[in-house]
Parts: sequence; C-alpha cells; structure tokens
Amino acid sequence: MPTYTAPTKDMAFLLHEMLKVSTQNVPGYADLEPDFTAAVLEEAGKITSEVLAPLNVVGDREGCRLENGVVYTPTGFKQAFQQVCEAEWPGLATDPEYGGQGLPYVIGNAVGEMFASANQAFTMYQGLTNGAYAAIHAHGTDEQKSRYLPKMTNCEWTGTMNLTEPHCGTDLGMMRTKAEPQKDGSYKITGQKIFISAGDHDMADNIIHLVLAKIPGGPEGIKGVSLFIVPKFMVNDDGSLGARNGVSVGSIEEKMGIHGNSTCVLNYDGATGYLLGEEHKGMRAMFTMMNHARLGVGMQGLAQAEVAYQNAVIYARDRLQGRDVTGAKNPSGPADPIIVHPDIRRSLMDQKSFVEGARAFLLWGAAMLDRAHRMDDKDADGLISLLTPVIKGFLTDQGYDMTVKAQQVYGGHGYIEEHGMSQFTRDARIAMIYEGANGVQALDLVGRKLAADGGKHVMAFFDMVKTFIKENEGDAALKADFLDPLKAASKDLQSSAMYFMQTGMKNPNNALAGSNDFMHLFGHVCLGLMWAQMAKAANEALAAGTSDPDFYQTKLTTGRYYMARQLPATALHLARIQTGADTVMALAPEAF
Amino acid sequence: MPTYTAPTKDMAFLLHEMLKVSTQNVPGYADLEPDFTAAVLEEAGKITSEVLAPLNVVGDREGCRLENGVVYTPTGFKQAFQQVCEAEWPGLATDPEYGGQGLPYVIGNAVGEMFASANQAFTMYQGLTNGAYAAIHAHGTDEQKSRYLPKMTNCEWTGTMNLTEPHCGTDLGMMRTKAEPQKDGSYKITGQKIFISAGDHDMADNIIHLVLAKIPGGPEGIKGVSLFIVPKFMVNDDGSLGARNGVSVGSIEEKMGIHGNSTCVLNYDGATGYLLGEEHKGMRAMFTMMNHARLGVGMQGLAQAEVAYQNAVIYARDRLQGRDVTGAKNPSGPADPIIVHPDIRRSLMDQKSFVEGARAFLLWGAAMLDRAHRMDDKDADGLISLLTPVIKGFLTDQGYDMTVKAQQVYGGHGYIEEHGMSQFTRDARIAMIYEGANGVQALDLVGRKLAADGGKHVMAFFDMVKTFIKENEGDAALKADFLDPLKAASKDLQSSAMYFMQTGMKNPNNALAGSNDFMHLFGHVCLGLMWAQMAKAANEALAAGTSDPDFYQTKLTTGRYYMARQLPATALHLARIQTGADTVMALAPEAF
Repeated sequence: MPTYTAPTKDMAFLLHEMLKVSTQNVPGYADLEPDFTAAVLEEAGKITSEVLAPLNVVGDREGCRLENGVVYTPTGFKQAFQQVCEAEWPGLATDPEYGGQGLPYVIGNAVGEMFASANQAFTMYQGLTNGAYAAIHAHGTDEQKSRYLPKMTNCEWTGTMNLTEPHCGTDLGMMRTKAEPQKDGSYKITGQKIFISAGDHDMADNIIHLVLAKIPGGPEGIKGVSLFIVPKFMVNDDGSLGARNGVSVGSIEEKMGIHGNSTCVLNYDGATGYLLGEEHKGMRAMFTMMNHARLGVGMQGLAQAEVAYQNAVIYARDRLQGRDVTGAKNPSGPADPIIVHPDIRRSLMDQKSFVEGARAFLLWGAAMLDRAHRMDDKDADGLISLLTPVIKGFLTDQGYDMTVKAQQVYGGHGYIEEHGMSQFTRDARIAMIYEGANGVQALDLVGRKLAADGGKHVMAFFDMVKTFIKENEGDAALKADFLDPLKAASKDLQSSAMYFMQTGMKNPNNALAGSNDFMHLFGHVCLGLMWAQMAKAANEALAAGTSDPDFYQTKLTTGRYYMARQLPATALHLARIQTGADTVMALAPEAF
Repeated sequence: MPTYTAPTKDMAFLLHEMLKVSTQNVPGYADLEPDFTAAVLEEAGKITSEVLAPLNVVGDREGCRLENGVVYTPTGFKQAFQQVCEAEWPGLATDPEYGGQGLPYVIGNAVGEMFASANQAFTMYQGLTNGAYAAIHAHGTDEQKSRYLPKMTNCEWTGTMNLTEPHCGTDLGMMRTKAEPQKDGSYKITGQKIFISAGDHDMADNIIHLVLAKIPGGPEGIKGVSLFIVPKFMVNDDGSLGARNGVSVGSIEEKMGIHGNSTCVLNYDGATGYLLGEEHKGMRAMFTMMNHARLGVGMQGLAQAEVAYQNAVIYARDRLQGRDVTGAKNPSGPADPIIVHPDIRRSLMDQKSFVEGARAFLLWGAAMLDRAHRMDDKDADGLISLLTPVIKGFLTDQGYDMTVKAQQVYGGHGYIEEHGMSQFTRDARIAMIYEGANGVQALDLVGRKLAADGGKHVMAFFDMVKTFIKENEGDAALKADFLDPLKAASKDLQSSAMYFMQTGMKNPNNALAGSNDFMHLFGHVCLGLMWAQMAKAANEALAAGTSDPDFYQTKLTTGRYYMARQLPATALHLARIQTGADTVMALAPEAF
C-alpha cells in the first residue's frame, strides 16, 4: 500500500527562502512567519497522510455507487470529510466575511497540494465547491452570497460546475439546456449535463449546482449562455432545507481513475434555478470558476507526480536487484538496491527535478494571484492569466508522464494494482483532460493570452527573466549552471513567439500547429526560472552557514539536473514550431 | 465501442514496394507474391476485426476468474480461440515438420500485428505459446519436439514462460525455485512463480509451462539456472493426457489492463519437470524465448497505437466542436469536425507517422530475421540482435504515448470506459514492462549489444544508413526532406556512441546514464531510415504512374512530418547523453 509524507520542508524553503513571503509587501503576508506556516503545514501534513492517504486505494477499489437515486461514496469518505471540515481546512483561504480564515493563496496552495497528493478523488469534492464558491463570491448578489457561501465554507454544502453536455464540451455555444424565466424571478432549468465531478454524494446536506443554460430568445451561441444556481434541495429563507429540487442522477460514469469521485450524469427536469450574475453573461462568470479550477488542476499534476515519486523512491531503495556496475553497494546482501542503477536514477531525477520545480512554480503563481487579489496588481493579474494555461497544460502533461515513470520503477509490480502505482497514473490522467483539455489550453495560450493587451504580459515575462539574469550574472555559482541555460531557453521562447507573430498573420494555423509545443516550451522556461531562483536561495543559505547543508546541496544538484537534462527540450519545441502548419495540415480528412 | 480495420493496404505497400519481398533472394520469399499475401492479409484482417476485436472490451470488463482452482477466460474467448485454431493461424510461420505452414516471419509479423491490435489480451495466450515453442524447437530433444510441438502448433496445448519470483524479476540469479533430480531422469520442481501470463485458462487441453529453476548443488547465481518443461497434465507416451501435475494457480493478479489474460501466481509443489537443453544453461534457452518475445512485445506497442489511432481518427472526423479558424468546413452544421483543428491534426500526425514508421521497422526487422534463419546470415542475425532492445523499448514507450494521444483526442469521452480508449492505454502500458522493463532494454543495448563482436553490428548499421543516403543523394525528391534530416540524426547517433566509448571507459555510468536516451535516439534514426525508404518507394510508384496517387502522396506527407517534427528529437537525446553521469549519480540514496 502506498504512503504519503507531506513535503513540508520543501514548502517552507519555497515560502521563506525563495519567495520570502513574510517580507513581501502583500496584505496578509506579514502573518506568514515561519513558525506559523510550519504549524499549518504540519497539521495539514498530518491529516492528509494519516486520514486521506489510506483512503485513496479504498476509493479506487470501491468507487461510488448509485442506488435508488442516491449516491454513496466509498467506505470512510464521509467520516474523513467530517474530520476535514471540523478542522476547518476548506475555509483556510476563503473570505472571513463568510466564515473563512482568509489566509493568502500561497499557503492555501501548499496545503492544497497535500490534499491532492493524498487523495485526489476525495479532494475534488471540496475542489469543486471552491470553484462554485469563487463564482458566487465574484458574481453573486449579497443575498446569494450570504445564503450560500457560509455553508459552502463550513462544508455543510458542497458545489459543482455543470458545463458539458453529451454533444458539447469545449464548444459550449451548442448547449441545449434551457432556462425558462418564471414569474417569481427564478428559472426552470431543463436539460442533461454530463461528466459532473462530485455531482452527487452522501457527505453533505446539500449540493449547490452551478449550471450553464440558455434563456430562450437570447443571443445565439456562446453569447446566449447564462449561469444559474440550482440547489439539490431548495433553501428556505432561514437557511433550512426545503423540498428536493428537480435534478437527479442519471448514472455514475465508469472511468479510468478517480473512482472515489462520483462523476455523474445529471438530469434537470424543470429544476428551479437562480440567475448568477447577468443574463447571457454566463461564460464570464464561468471563467471565474474555470481559471480558479485550472490552477487547481495544474496542481493535481504536480500532486500525483509527488506522491508517485515518493513511493518510487521507497521502492528503489528497498528492492534488491542486480549490482552497481562500479562496485557492490550492498555486498553482504544478495543484490544491491535498484537505486544504484543509472537508469533508475535518471528516472528518479526526472521526477524529483520536475516536482520541486513545479511546486516552486505553483507557489510563485499563487503569490502572483495574491498580489492580484490583495493589491489589485494588474500586472500580476495579467501575468497569472497568461500563465494559467501553462500551469494547467504543462504541469498535467508532465505530471502524468512522471507518474508513468514512477510506476515504471516498480517493474511488473507497478502494473498490478496491489502497490497502488497504477492508480496514480490513472488518477493523474484526468487532469490532462478536464477543465479544458490540454489542447484547448495550448489554443488559449497561443490564440488568446499571448496577444492579450498588446502582448504586454508576455513581454513582462521576458523582462522578468532578463532582469533576473542580469541581476545575478556576476554570481559565478549561478552563471554557467543556471543563468546560461535559462537564457538559451528564454531565447527559444522568444524566437517561437516571434515566429508566431511573423507567420501567424498570414495563416493562423502556422501558430496553432505549434501551440502544444509552445505551451511546453513556455513551461520549461518557467521551471528553469524557478530553478535559477531556488539555486540562488540555496546558495544564500549555504553562504550564511546553514546547519543543514545537505538539503541545499541536494537542491543545487537537482536544479543542475533540470537545467542540463530537461531544459534543452526547448530547442526541440522551437524546431517543431518553426516547421509551421505545412505538414500538419496537408492531408485531407479522409487521408488519415 | 471501438472498431478495428486491418491496415492491409499499408502492409502490402511495405511488403511489395518497400521490401520488395518476392524479388529478395530469401528461401520462401518467392512464394510471397502480391496475390498470395493479399489473400493471407485479407483473411487475417477478417478474423481479427470481426471475431477478436469485438471481444476486446468484453475481456477488459469481465477479466478472468479463478474458481476452485480452475481459471475461466472471459465470455467468447474459448470459442474465438477455437475459430483461430481451426483456421490454423497459430502455425502460420512455424516449422512444417511439426504441422506448421512454414511461411516467413515477414508475413507472420504482419498477421501478428493484426491479432495484437484487435485483442492483445487474447493474443497473448498464443504469443506465450510461440515463445515456449521457439525454446523447445531450438533446445529440445527430438523426442521433446515431437511430443510437444505438434500440439502447440494446432493449439491443443498452449505454453507459458516462468521466470519471475516475488523477490526477483530482472535479477534471476536470486531465484529460489528448485529442481531436484529424480531417478527416472525427471526433476521435482518446487517454488513459486509470479506474473505468469496465460498461466492457466480453459481454452486448451493442456499447458506446457517452461520453468526456470535451480538444481541443488549447481553453480551460484545465474549460472546455476536450468530450464524445465512442466506440463499442466502429464503426457503419456501415446500423447494422451495423464494425471494433473503438481502445479496450481495461487491467484490471478489484479492489473491495470490486459484483464482478458490470466496473469497467474503459479505454485509448483514437487511438480514433475523435464530438463530442456543443458543443465545450468537455462538462461541461454530462455533467451531464445525472450528475444522472440521481445520482438513480439515491440509489435504490441505498434499494434495498440494503431488501433487507438484508428479510433481517434473516426472520432476526430465525427465530433463537431468549434470552427476552423481559417473558415468553416461544415458551414451547414452546428460546428466543424475537430479534425480541422491544428492541435488535433498535430496529434493525429504524430500517431500516423509513428505507426507507419514502426510497421515498416518491424517488417524490415522480420525480413532480417528471415535472412538470419533461412540463409544463416550472420550479419542479419547480428543486426537484429542489436536492434531487438530498440524495437522492444522504443516502440513500446512511443506506442504507449501514442495511445495516450489517441485517448486525448476524445477529451472527457476518452477517460470514461465506454469508448474503449482507456483500455488501449491500459493494455499498452504493460508492453513497457514485461519481457524486460524498458530500462533493462536500454541497459542491454548500451551495456551489451553496442560493443558486441567489437562493435561490428552498430558499424554495419551506420554503413547501411550511409550507403542508402549515398545511393540516393542525387534524388532531389528525397534529399532535402528525407536524406538530410536522416544524415543529421544518424550523426547524433554516432556522436552518442562516440561519447560512450570515450567516457564509458573511465566510468561506465557515463554511458548507462544515457542509455534510455540512446535507445530512443536509435529508435528515431531507425524510423527515419524507414521513412526515407518508404518515401523512395512512394516516389517510384508515382513516377511509374500509379493509379492511386493519393496513397503515395499521403505517404510522402506523413514521412515529411516525421522527418521535420519527430526526428529532431535526436539532438535533445544527444544533449542529454553528453551531460554524462554527474548530475544523475550525484545524490546519496537518502537525499531523494
């Protein structure tokens, strides 16, 4: 059975030595002193490793079941959900006005990673609630906010996001679910939604469905879509629950993974719904949820890679097979542990350098989000908006690959379900798909975000990289191993953007044919920047005479590995991008 | 439900236009006239698409079950096995002396791909039999051959390979299963074997287990391992079946995929076994099976990629979502089919250019094997021996990635089990692991095969590439798009080999740390060579005024895509290789 140990030490390093949060001039950050964050991280580490991680395999094996219209979650989920809620984890970074603790995202994100590592399927019940919460918080009336948000904070109620229909997911303009206005100002919602994560369950008293639907007579396509609050049980004015609303579970999908989460077909038969935000402006409100959710999904890519990596390391240290070619490392035993073998090392270093880089990237991004929200910093907002598809697409593609590598360390034992390594890959697989498949992320990045506000944000990114390199170029400990590779990679990114500008005008397909490569190229540059920043922090600690030099030396070695072995992928992505659309688009559809 | 259509046209192109089999001077090839091979391929296409493919999902959902010591295969498997056997497919390329049809591997391989695409779990029952057959054929006594081979040819009996034990898989020197000599010349086999594919089932009257075990008192480690024939039911001298032997099924493993194949724990409790080959020379005999099996596993990588690709294309043509940015392609419909989108194209072209290149590589390799076996061509034997780990490792790594890409085309519909796309990835995953995990393939390639016979075979490979380039350099239709990229990639391969020679002497880890990259680099060069050869054949057909120019133009476009977008990966692999072992091996085991 796999185990999970929260990487609290690495998180503390990132918060206090790389990001130096408590010295940043962001409202709320002054509270983030090392003692305080250590206490939060330790407690979160405890409940995730002790309560949630052991239920991960249970959820996978049992799955959810639908009986007489009622959805039952796997054994232990309900009790664990209560424990999590009693400890007030879900409200950690939500608005104090509605019962939250109001901590910054940067600490919420660190805690979120732990939950997602320990049990992704379980954590999604709360994750969807967070998305629905964010949409109501941003677009709801005061009455809606006070009616729904407190109970979504204390977990009495959970939330869902209803977008997809059988015939449309990405292209929501085609949706058929309709919302007919009623005399009392409410709407009657009718239609079928599919792939609804956490769509129904037995862990909370009520579920607040956020549902996209079309008001008849409105504009065609995506411009006629509105967003509605549709509670599972009607909510009386005093907050008590009334009758069951007209929404029911058609079925639970059989999936490759995340069996512990109930992915439902939901049928709306004249269900009562309440407009959230403005009529026909549903997509705007939905994107509040989506952007929030996309960062969370990117985190899942990291989180599954992390837990898979941890277990791969344990196995590699334990499993005896073959001998170190340079001389036995366990001469008294029948063989050496497989961690002595270079190709096992290569795989573990790929994983380690990815998860540590990705964690830095996500916490850095969360700090950017804090600046945007707490300081109304438009530049930070623009930057995180630009990078959201990179975080979602790159981290989930790579995160999945890392779970496959971790599974591979187990050989045949990774393929049988007994060791749990298969589950990590099966669970991680969904993150490449939901909240906008990664191809859609790449399209969003290249087709929309790159040129947004006149390309201002990507220029700001390049400036940031350039400034960091310039400021540290005199540091010989950084230059050859970190700054030079970062500079080369950043140049590849700039060349790609230039290629898109030059050729995309003539034919947008020249840019779009390279969108996936560009997303990955961008991701590598981001991780390269993170590694350079981590290396700088590690050097500072070593220069200051840290009592734990091994930690920082390991950090530097891991960073060097990333810069030497992973970052050069940018050249391949650039080469592919520069071939344009010709061979990609040449074939007639029937020639495939 | 997914479908499968055998790629008979592409196979005919490879056999007759690229390999030009019937004009090759190989015994048996003269029979391979286009009409004959077309008939064989068409019949194989029929049974695989009509009988086996529909059972693929059934096998995945039902799995195998063990009841009172008896293993039951999924509904329909037994009847399908009878149909396959009655049509004599298993004996297609086996020795006529024992009832086989004696056709060359090159046609057996094409047929084998179809079986593996249509239903990998089902086909493995026969695949393991083939491996056991090959070992008995190569190392058995005349009496053993005539006793076992005819019934393994006509499917009355199947076979298995028993290597792995709970504590050892790669490092078989540690095995504990023992074989105690009996007075009658037989042995009593005692021990536990795990991960035994097709280990037991209800489809054949008997199962011939080939079991590695140690004879007490023999040499330590791998040099004391012998191979034994252990029938499930004892075989009387007249070929009739006697008592049940002392081998029983402990359990069936729960796996990520290939649920239709019974992966068994087999317990040997003093079972009667017969030495196959010489005492303590079991590994030699086992490698006869392994090399055979490794080529078959490489083929599974292609086969799953092919069937997943086929279904991705069907979905991409059918699913309406969004509009072509350059102008609607389905203006009267609510949206365009997703095949108009560049990133979907990119994914489909990745898949198409891989499967067609891989198919060429496997058939080319099978032709090499025919030369080795039918003409005793030592050079061909050396070359295929060198390339076996490339075929196994590269094609299964890449093949798996392609199934993931195909699944991604389906978006959320790829994650639910309903469409069958998840099964292709789950089934393909095992091919990276069994018959020697791909890290072991890379080790075999770099640590053993590369320097075998003084490096003669890799030099022969380089010569072959060089000669092809030289002979065709005057052909402008090939030069820029095919020969120049091939030359660059081949140079990267040579530089890598050179790096290994120069630095591996000082420290073998400098070579082994790059073994995985080298295997992939080598694989790309092989597929690049194949594409250049296919392009040449396509140009010839076009110049000759073919009646089907679209097929050849499509071939050329697909080839150009591979050369432009995939082959440049060689530079990244070289860059990684040239960083050596430093960052790979630097950390202490406890630093991970």
